[in-house]
Amino acid sequence: LIRVVEYVGELRVSEHPEPEPGEAEAVIRLRVGGICNTDMELMAGYRGFSGGLGHEFVGDVVAGPPEWLGRRVVGEINVACGDCDLCQRGMPTHCRNRRVLGIADYYGAFADRFCLPVRNLVPVPDGVPDRVAVFTEPLAAACQVLETAHIHPTDRVVVVGAGKLGMLVAQVLRLTGCNLAVVTRRDRQKALLAEVAIQAAAIGELEVGVHDVVVDCTGSPEGFAAALALVRPRGIIVLKSTYAGMTTADLTQIAVKEITVVGSRCGSFPPAIRLLERELVHVAPLVDACFKLSDAVEAFHFAARPGVLKVLLEP
Amino acid sequence: LIRVVEYVGELRVSEHPEPEPGEAEAVIRLRVGGICNTDMELMAGYRGFSGGLGHEFVGDVVAGPPEWLGRRVVGEINVACGDCDLCQRGMPTHCRNRRVLGIADYYGAFADRFCLPVRNLVPVPDGVPDRVAVFTEPLAAACQVLETAHIHPTDRVVVVGAGKLGMLVAQVLRLTGCNLAVVTRRDRQKALLAEVAIQAAAIGELEVGVHDVVVDCTGSPEGFAAALALVRPRGIIVLKSTYAGMTTADLTQIAVKEITVVGSRCGSFPPAIRLLERELVHVAPLVDACFKLSDAVEAFHFAARPGVLKVLLEP
Repeated sequence: LIRVVEYVGELRVSEHPEPEPGEAEAVIRLRVGGICNTDMELMAGYRGFSGGLGHEFVGDVVAGPPEWLGRRVVGEINVACGDCDLCQRGMPTHCRNRRVLGIADYYGAFADRFCLPVRNLVPVPDGVPDRVAVFTEPLAAACQVLETAHIHPTDRVVVVGAGKLGMLVAQVLRLTGCNLAVVTRRDRQKALLAEVAIQAAAIGELEVGVHDVVVDCTGSPEGFAAALALVRPRGIIVLKSTYAGMTTADLTQIAVKEITVVGSRCGSFPPAIRLLERELVHVAPLVDACFKLSDAVEAFHFAARPGVLKVLLEP
Repeated sequence: LIRVVEYVGELRVSEHPEPEPGEAEAVIRLRVGGICNTDMELMAGYRGFSGGLGHEFVGDVVAGPPEWLGRRVVGEINVACGDCDLCQRGMPTHCRNRRVLGIADYYGAFADRFCLPVRNLVPVPDGVPDRVAVFTEPLAAACQVLETAHIHPTDRVVVVGAGKLGMLVAQVLRLTGCNLAVVTRRDRQKALLAEVAIQAAAIGELEVGVHDVVVDCTGSPEGFAAALALVRPRGIIVLKSTYAGMTTADLTQIAVKEITVVGSRCGSFPPAIRLLERELVHVAPLVDACFKLSDAVEAFHFAARPGVLKVLLEP
């Protein structure tokens, strides 16, 4: 039997039979898992979720093709069909039949052992510790901002919202050399940003209508409204988070100021791993706590506290 | 004295003194003016407007620099300062101090004679009739869709909303060779579209989630919601119109489907004039009525009827 962290109307740690890998799947033994805001949203009703949670992980392959056995891996979370028009067009993260590890129709990584298709696996270089490698998935999502928008070194850029993801997005943007500010009111975040020479600002301190790119990591209507005010005409707003329900927004501003609003979701793993291996992004300071898998309920409660950044789970 | 169509709490035709051109301004005698939806929105309270209306025109220069005297012209409507950061960056239509002919702080073209800076003037080729040339400004706005988004010949494109502007946008998109459908329920529009071999469709007839580009020309929340449904993952929605007040929208779809939403407003005149001169866009069928300037109030009432396309004003 294995332990599985699942949400079935309530969050609990249950015992399940050993996972049975399907064709082209591997079985992975969890080393470290990371709790993401999406996990919290799933429990709040997003997508009507029910099932096993967890999509940020690093682990060891314990069953599967011989060439993968024993390797330490992270894994792309979108399980794509490979056959639909979007897969064929090279957009497997948008596969029309996709399942998503711990998010949609695929049991998650917060378990002693779990399955994932072999083609989703990415080996972790030896020099990258587990508690760093576990950030690969959210860092890939942060890197996706750079896939989505061309950030110029001369750009004035603002990140609105300095939560788990916002702090990673800020660090990725920092590497472009751009003129960067991060909106946050929290002293903890301000201190972390200062350590890597990123300017923290209160929203009222920033000039409106002048920023080339604004990345909204808040997931709140207020965050989007702030982004609309901060961005310059013909500037870019990157939406990096999901919003609970419908949002009221001043779409006329988009037309009149000819703003580009572009969504950005999951990213590719190899760039994230390169940044972690080169130690260009600092993730260790973002870890607030590490819980045992059997204490996952307590871990989730802790992770839900305002201002808490990354909470990890270990077997 | 000259006649001026102005909105001052009510729409009326008033008598004003002859316009006195400022430095670097010309005086233009109206040949033909066109009523735009923006004119109607201004009267409904948009921007708290008060003043002389009209920004679509063709006319003759009757005072100004000798090299312009007697020339038949159309004119860019944004009166830019030339000095602010956005003017200096080559975005005069977004000038921070801009006035806009008949829209913001600058008396409009629905008058016997009116002023405009010389640098806003664009000569009309002899072969283009007045009632065609008057479409230059809205056609330039339609062409701006192509400046805003790269439309590929292989793209599946939908225009939602077949009003004055939507019909011009559809004709511009038609020239790209793209696979184009226009959402409309009106028989008149369907017939006009059929004449230029553009597919008309009811919204329910179109496949959701597969269109590369969707242009929303409705200015309604329902139009934006339809665009979100029709566009494919990583597709583009072009917002071509202003929305009355705040709009409720499902921004999460933008993030999850990684959609690009981009606003598009005024366009450059030379491409529009080239298309009119080459007769690649057919504007004559869009004219529903032509009124005398002194009957402008009646003309506006007629233009406001559902389904009416372009209404012109002549001295």
